[in-house]
Amino acid sequence: MAKLYIIKIGGNIIDDDEKLSSFLKSFAQLPVLKILIHGGGKLATKLAADLNIPQELIEGRRITDAETLKIVTMVYAGLINKSIIAKLQQYNCNAVGLTGADANQIEAHKRTGHKIDYGFAGDIDVIHPEFLHLLLSKNYVPVLAPITHDKKGQLLNTNADTIAQEIAKGLSSSFESHLVYSFEKTGVLKDVEDDQSLIKRITLKEYIQLKDRNIISGGMIPKLDNAFAALAKGVKSVTIGKAENIQELIQGNAGTTIINE
Amino acid sequence: MAKLYIIKIGGNIIDDDEKLSSFLKSFAQLPVLKILIHGGGKLATKLAADLNIPQELIEGRRITDAETLKIVTMVYAGLINKSIIAKLQQYNCNAVGLTGADANQIEAHKRTGHKIDYGFAGDIDVIHPEFLHLLLSKNYVPVLAPITHDKKGQLLNTNADTIAQEIAKGLSSSFESHLVYSFEKTGVLKDVEDDQSLIKRITLKEYIQLKDRNIISGGMIPKLDNAFAALAKGVKSVTIGKAENIQELIQGNAGTTIINE
Repeated sequence: MAKLYIIKIGGNIIDDDEKLSSFLKSFAQLPVLKILIHGGGKLATKLAADLNIPQELIEGRRITDAETLKIVTMVYAGLINKSIIAKLQQYNCNAVGLTGADANQIEAHKRTGHKIDYGFAGDIDVIHPEFLHLLLSKNYVPVLAPITHDKKGQLLNTNADTIAQEIAKGLSSSFESHLVYSFEKTGVLKDVEDDQSLIKRITLKEYIQLKDRNIISGGMIPKLDNAFAALAKGVKSVTIGKAENIQELIQGNAGTTIINE
Repeated sequence: MAKLYIIKIGGNIIDDDEKLSSFLKSFAQLPVLKILIHGGGKLATKLAADLNIPQELIEGRRITDAETLKIVTMVYAGLINKSIIAKLQQYNCNAVGLTGADANQIEAHKRTGHKIDYGFAGDIDVIHPEFLHLLLSKNYVPVLAPITHDKKGQLLNTNADTIAQEIAKGLSSSFESHLVYSFEKTGVLKDVEDDQSLIKRITLKEYIQLKDRNIISGGMIPKLDNAFAALAKGVKSVTIGKAENIQELIQGNAGTTIINE
């Protein structure tokens, strides 16, 4: 099976023009089949503030009321996605920017049954990977914004890490799929203040121990939970590391590799 | 050659949820090969006002400074494009929302050499129709937002009527391409206040006469100039009429048909 790299770019990189450009230049040059999935960064929060629309985040998840859905659709699917496409095209990477609604790639439903009302937040039901297959077969590079839909006309705000994981799983029967979470940090660290404390490989057993001892905490937990879930569902490898090292991450020479054992 | 309908939707329809939904339902059902191109409506103007970003329009063209480019990218490529996609998917039309930057479909350059500085307004250099061919061959329905790029990393704001015309021309060697401008008006009217004064067909000679007599004026002039230019370059027909009559427009039973003679 051909190797396919599903690369999530997130964190502060999205908000930093220079770092984002540098990442995209490296990404464009990766001589592999690839899909890029981007998060939203802080631009949506800033736009909401400029428009006096109050924002609420619970455990890192944005409460998406109707006005906030408009904002994230504008910022994620519009400004960020298309700015990325223009840059990749500049670097001769034939990128196509999409959401989960386009070509009905990702069907989701409005999250319900929680104590918290997340509003128009979407939990994924099913991935239809035919369109990604078509694009990849013709050497187009898909770039996905974290917006999905419910197939009943409603757009939904969906976590980009989860989309990356579901896409990697959904394509793992046709490709040797490798999932890469790239952001501003070196990888999974024992001490978040110390880049030298990088954990180069981590098994599920080790993860549970480190979590119990609060060595791994915060935003890294959903990321790693996603990673192990992906491995259990056929994804070949998951790597977490610095966006500026994307070429080394792909080669397994940087970041943290998550092991299925 | 297969018939292909390039349909521009614009004007007030974009701003009216109910009319837009009704149009999209009819559009979804059209049993033909089709491409939808949408304008921006007044949402961008409203967002700019909410953000206190002054807007300047000269002869109906928006002066696109850097902040305004962000706004139109958010509104056109994000909010409007993806809301249309979600609706079309609801109506079982397998739509894919794109800009001219995606798959490098439309290369443009920043408009220069005018007395007026239009800012990041893009004039089209070349259409690369390969991606549209691919989508149409697999029964996907392309939906284009009026944003292009210069292949040097810069997004540009480009008139949707012009994009529709250039796409129709660019595909006319492979398809019998029919261009339809649909909006809130019945067609080209002798008296803009009177729907009964519809001109059902108009030749270039008649157009010049009506323009000289100021019977045709304002926003209709660039639309008709575009129409005649398209016919001269291989487009089979151009029809202008009411969005709610889209099925009749396709059949030539409503609106104004522009004749190449």
